Amino acid sequence: MKYLMIALLSCSSYALCAQTTQDEEGIKEIFNEALRPGKSYEMLSDLCLKIGPRLSGSPGAAAAVEWSRHLMKTYDFDSVWMQSVMVPHWVRGQQEVAHIINSKKMGTVNLSVCALGGSVGTGPSGVSAPVIEVKNFDELKQLGPKAAGKIIFFNRPMDPTRLNTFAAYGGAVDQRGSGASEAAKLGAVAVIVRSMGLNPEDYPHTGALHYTPNVEQIPAVAISTKHADLLAKLLKGEKELNVYIETHCEMLDDAPSFNVIGQLNGGEYKDEIIDIGGHLDSWDLAQGAHDDGAGCVQSIEVLRLFKELGIKPKRTLRAVMFMNEENGLRGGKTYADLAKAKKENHLAAIESDEGGFTPRGFTMTASDAVKNKIKSWKPLLEPYGLTDFDHPGGGADIGPMGELGTALIGYLPDSQRYFDYHPPPLLPVFKWTQGNWRWGLPL
Amino acid sequence: MKYLMIALLSCSSYALCAQTTQDEEGIKEIFNEALRPGKSYEMLSDLCLKIGPRLSGSPGAAAAVEWSRHLMKTYDFDSVWMQSVMVPHWVRGQQEVAHIINSKKMGTVNLSVCALGGSVGTGPSGVSAPVIEVKNFDELKQLGPKAAGKIIFFNRPMDPTRLNTFAAYGGAVDQRGSGASEAAKLGAVAVIVRSMGLNPEDYPHTGALHYTPNVEQIPAVAISTKHADLLAKLLKGEKELNVYIETHCEMLDDAPSFNVIGQLNGGEYKDEIIDIGGHLDSWDLAQGAHDDGAGCVQSIEVLRLFKELGIKPKRTLRAVMFMNEENGLRGGKTYADLAKAKKENHLAAIESDEGGFTPRGFTMTASDAVKNKIKSWKPLLEPYGLTDFDHPGGGADIGPMGELGTALIGYLPDSQRYFDYHPPPLLPVFKWTQGNWRWGLPL
Repeated sequence: MKYLMIALLSCSSYALCAQTTQDEEGIKEIFNEALRPGKSYEMLSDLCLKIGPRLSGSPGAAAAVEWSRHLMKTYDFDSVWMQSVMVPHWVRGQQEVAHIINSKKMGTVNLSVCALGGSVGTGPSGVSAPVIEVKNFDELKQLGPKAAGKIIFFNRPMDPTRLNTFAAYGGAVDQRGSGASEAAKLGAVAVIVRSMGLNPEDYPHTGALHYTPNVEQIPAVAISTKHADLLAKLLKGEKELNVYIETHCEMLDDAPSFNVIGQLNGGEYKDEIIDIGGHLDSWDLAQGAHDDGAGCVQSIEVLRLFKELGIKPKRTLRAVMFMNEENGLRGGKTYADLAKAKKENHLAAIESDEGGFTPRGFTMTASDAVKNKIKSWKPLLEPYGLTDFDHPGGGADIGPMGELGTALIGYLPDSQRYFDYHPPPLLPVFKWTQGNWRWGLPL
Repeated sequence: MKYLMIALLSCSSYALCAQTTQDEEGIKEIFNEALRPGKSYEMLSDLCLKIGPRLSGSPGAAAAVEWSRHLMKTYDFDSVWMQSVMVPHWVRGQQEVAHIINSKKMGTVNLSVCALGGSVGTGPSGVSAPVIEVKNFDELKQLGPKAAGKIIFFNRPMDPTRLNTFAAYGGAVDQRGSGASEAAKLGAVAVIVRSMGLNPEDYPHTGALHYTPNVEQIPAVAISTKHADLLAKLLKGEKELNVYIETHCEMLDDAPSFNVIGQLNGGEYKDEIIDIGGHLDSWDLAQGAHDDGAGCVQSIEVLRLFKELGIKPKRTLRAVMFMNEENGLRGGKTYADLAKAKKENHLAAIESDEGGFTPRGFTMTASDAVKNKIKSWKPLLEPYGLTDFDHPGGGADIGPMGELGTALIGYLPDSQRYFDYHPPPLLPVFKWTQGNWRWGLPL
């Protein structure tokens, strides 16, 4: 429930910046304003459906920069500006192709795959090789020379019994992040990685890989969970199964882009800054509503609510749209570098990048004094369903601010369905068209 | 998170029926089994996408009866049977038409409407009349004779600031349930009711109306929230706005249908019965995943999990698929009548009909002794996110069991997004078709 979440992010900053008014009525006022005529849904709809996918360096990312700059200008924040950031520029190219070539049982079998973000492409001639399945890097190492010339298929599922799905993700994502380089060390020619997702699904989930320096870069694709299961099943019955993969992705030269920042000036302590942020960029195969359109519009909405309600913050509030969280973190690093160079005093940074689900609490990486202060507000937030203030955390984009002594705070929504949506393919929208309701792709 | 919810429903029955094993390990075992190879998603997908809409009396409802009977047979429950229920048989007919005829500003304006369930139709000649907007029955009564010959437009939104959206629904649904009869008492010719929903949306939400006996039955439609806002806006500027409504719905003769029941026999106390239920029927314009496919598959999954794990319940467990919750409650009444006639001892009935969202707790209508007993298990359930055991409740289908002294328990998931999905139009599905991913309607 995005509106609630925004209200609570607001409350948190509110309480930080205006301690004398941190009472139930103030919070209720923000809460009601966010839920009643709040602008978040409208903003999120515009960002996801009118702009859509916005991978760093893409026209979509440039459009999102201009959209957020213009929007914050429209809301008449005290200042709105951009910070130059050079970002990695990876492009997917034409749609990926993959199939099993020689199944005795099923003949040629198309596989639902997509290139992992950052992967090199196979080019038009593709890669064709026998497939070996492994569950982890230990099994990979045991293959030794057998891995040479092969396609390595990483197929360890996320643990479905973890209540915190981000922990399940953390337990599986090494395959996507480092699988290609680990396999390349043994001479493999490509990797197929089971999608990060908990459900049996038809579509593959993209996401970042990281090549180890000085190791050959080999192509890597994600495969849908259903086709991962199919491939594993066939591999059990057939000794040598050859797969053909063709991807056209490539890494271009770094491209110019921007962080976008809106500010409400503080009153009494205007040199003390509180940041509220999300990231503007998204993966190219999705509209990025949960990752991280939600975090962006929440951040803008916090400032808009303060302005709308005539609450003058004691400290300076900034809504920060970070660029390039997905595949480089350049925006987060740039923001912290500039803060350091300008000797700014950032009291706290609140990041929202875990989706737009029902609010449950905040994670914190901060001094005990700050943590205890924030926990003392718990009774004010519990009526809105926020009860979890007990875990360390923060966020990728605000991480570099830790060096400045900034208290790092992560907004914590319910995570149980996150990986069902992250990142899905483009969702169709239901449009009132020619006097009737119709589904169609937004773009 | 349906799997978790199922595990916890299981746990609840587990604890009720096998008190010596109600420990953390037993619950964890059920939890993991539900999440790892659980069948709920598969069942829900079949029910919603292969069968789809299943309003009482429709071929879809008949298919759902046979589907659930066959499925529980396949799982080899100790017994599976059906209970005859005669159900109301309302049909929508061809798609509704509505438009503003004479707006000076906009000319003819198509409106997104659908007939309310149970409504009489206008027939092919339609109804055309000036529209008057009211927010509640008091405003309606103040119209007095002015309401005669008019279309009354009920436009009080659900309160968006209620954290419990069912409370917001409860605060608005009188317009849908009784608006038509209240307006007819003053001579109105039709009613338009703002859809029960919190978001600005393009599609109208259907749902039941109830005609007051001996009051003329006039046609009633729901209008999308966006078009409710549009109509209200135009009414502010233009004094006389005529709307044309054409609906083809009608109430046919009662039709034969069934409750479907699966049972695992209890050991030590086999004559003591615990019911776990949901309703098989859904509205005709939706696939009924949250309302109430989720409740049905959870109920079946509880029994399947007990069987799969070799847990022999001390008391008899029944999965009950009630028929006709949406527009008559005939299944629930029949189930209680038969239990009474057979002098069965139903210890507790657990209903799941509030959607398939993240579990938060259980509501209860029971003796203090039973409530305290169940609350004593709270520490066992808290690790799975269930903390709310403090509200009265139960469910519509199990309601009639209250007379038998049965403890009534309602499964309580997070409600914050429920009315965004309830009931939406048919959702498209993402299918792997001809070697590519494609969106399409399931039917």
